[in-house]
Parts: sequence; structure tokens; C-alpha cells
Amino acid sequence: MKALEQKILNEGTVLGGDILKVGSFLNQQIDVAFLMEMGEEIDKIYKNAGVTKILTIEASGIAVAVAAAAVMKVNVVFAKKNKTSNVSGEVYSANVHSFTHGTDYLVTVPKDYIDANDKILIIDDFLANGKALEGLIDIVEQAGAEVAGCTCAIEKGFQGGGDKLRKKGYKVESLAVIEKMSPGNIEFRK
Amino acid sequence: MKALEQKILNEGTVLGGDILKVGSFLNQQIDVAFLMEMGEEIDKIYKNAGVTKILTIEASGIAVAVAAAAVMKVNVVFAKKNKTSNVSGEVYSANVHSFTHGTDYLVTVPKDYIDANDKILIIDDFLANGKALEGLIDIVEQAGAEVAGCTCAIEKGFQGGGDKLRKKGYKVESLAVIEKMSPGNIEFRK
Repeated sequence: MKALEQKILNEGTVLGGDILKVGSFLNQQIDVAFLMEMGEEIDKIYKNAGVTKILTIEASGIAVAVAAAAVMKVNVVFAKKNKTSNVSGEVYSANVHSFTHGTDYLVTVPKDYIDANDKILIIDDFLANGKALEGLIDIVEQAGAEVAGCTCAIEKGFQGGGDKLRKKGYKVESLAVIEKMSPGNIEFRK
Repeated sequence: MKALEQKILNEGTVLGGDILKVGSFLNQQIDVAFLMEMGEEIDKIYKNAGVTKILTIEASGIAVAVAAAAVMKVNVVFAKKNKTSNVSGEVYSANVHSFTHGTDYLVTVPKDYIDANDKILIIDDFLANGKALEGLIDIVEQAGAEVAGCTCAIEKGFQGGGDKLRKKGYKVESLAVIEKMSPGNIEFRK
């Protein structure tokens, strides 16, 4: 999505430690007109994929998921992040390792909200090492549902998570894929 | 909002401890078509109020805020919840006591995202004792900006937070106000 690449170039800041700051339009300020354009773009990718539901993860995935869902006319389910492994049998759960925080957390979704007939589009704001997406895919598959694909607004391609999932056969289409970045320089995948 | 009251009656479940479960449409599954209707309703309330920005709080406030913002054509800023009181000078922060979890947390918003000329609509999904709204109001006022009003999807009127803010002179218009509830019974404020 050219407009997103341009927005990242205009408003994004590369910090050390592979961090791209896009707080001015994606988190934690949200440029809602632009967000809705991203929703339209996601709809174009999955128009004929038979998506029945969008699954995302709190907190900043929710805005992108809602924008896409408003266009695609499906519902959103968001997974919660839990510190504790003490969850009830009424939820699907998966363990996710956060490299950013150096800790593990558990993502959970109540079993009521995904069923075996669902074709699920997984959405998040960022894709880096792919651990969050792997957890969400795991949950969809525990429910016996199908993964239609994964779309993140910004993929840090150089961290390899997206390509690893593509190799496993999942459709992963991010709206912008950064191939290389350093303070003052951002290059996108062609 | 009659349609919301009906939806709460149809899909909500009252649990012990003043908890109303509306996970099937508001959190953590989001009925996005209905969410957009709530956005239209919020726009009606603030159409002529000169709102420049919507402030909400992660995680489940984000969806309602985005829906309203899409109709009102303004941006959203979401406050983050932090466990630690160790925040930098680049953010506005306020302490919030959570009765649900029995702990305090700090809400923060980068100073860049609110300025003194803003007229801010504060949105959240639930209003109970009002502590989260008080924290968000505090942040708006630290920035020297104006609070246009506060709107939550569901106010538990019997917990008194909304009325306390109204007494202080703030405009608080919730889409549905529950006056009384117990398992199997929900009564709305007239």
C-alpha cells in the first residue's frame, strides 16, 4: 500500500533495537480516515476469500481489525493477553513469547466466539518475529476453523516472522513490508 | 439508545459482583455493524460541539472510539495503562484505581497528541465508578484542553461514577444507563 509506505516515511521514526515508532497515526494516536483506507485495502485482498470473522489481539490490533471489519461486514474477536497461565476450560489459549518485553504471555479467546465453520482473517498492527500471529493461528486451528490469511499493517520483513509463516503455507499479506531500516533510513520490500 | 438496551437485554448476562457480561457484541467479540450504529449515535450527541479529537483508553474503549471517530471525522488517541509509575516527562499521566482488580494503574498519553486548542470527547465502553474517566479528564486538563463531554456505551448508573461527574459539571451521556441489575433482571434509567 503505497500511501502507507509514504506515511511511514513521513511520520515514522526508527529508534534503536529494531523499533519503528508510528504513534502519530497507528498507535497511540490513530488517524481514523487513514485507518479506514487501510480497511478498504484489506477488503480488496480478501474480497473473495469467504472470510466470516476477523481475529485480532488487544490493544492496538483492534483499530485495524475494526476498520477492515466495517468494510467487510464481519465481526471482530480480539484475543486477550494474560499474565497468568491459570485460564478456564472455556477458552482457547496459546503461549506467546514477547521478544520486546522478554516475557511469555498467554493469549485467550472464549470458545463461544470461534467455531469450526469459521474462515478467519487474522489482523494485527505489527508483524515482527511472528510469535503473536503464531499464537492466533494456533487458536484458530484448536477451534477447527480455517485461517483465510494474516494481514498486518506494518511487517518488519527483516525480522523474518512473516516469511516463516509463508513457508509454512499461510497467506500473509502485510500492507507495508520494511526490508531494512536504521535511524533516518527505511527501505520497503519491492 | 433503544437498540443498545435491547441488545443488552438479549445478549447480556449479569454475573455476581456488579459484572455485566457483554462479550458477545462489545468485548471481546465486537458486532461491528452495531458498533458503527453506536458511532452514528455518538455523532448525533456531539454534532455541534466542535470536537477535535477523541480520547479513549486501551483496550476495549478503542473499538467504540474508532466507530465514533469514523463518523465524526476526527482522530483517536488512546491512553495506555501502565503498571509502573516510572514514566518519562514526555507524557501526561494520571493515577487510576481499579476496583475490579483492586490495584492502581497509571494512564499515560504522549504530550504530542493533545494540545491546548483541542476540544476532546472522552469515550469508553463501560462507566462504573468513573475512575478511568476521571483519569482521562485529568489528562485533558493537564494539557490545557477542553473536555467536550464523556460518552460510554454502557453506564452502570447504580455505581455512581457518571452522576458524580455530572455534579461536577461535565457532560456525561452514555448510550445506555443501567439503573438496577441482578441475575436475570436489568432495568434502564428512564
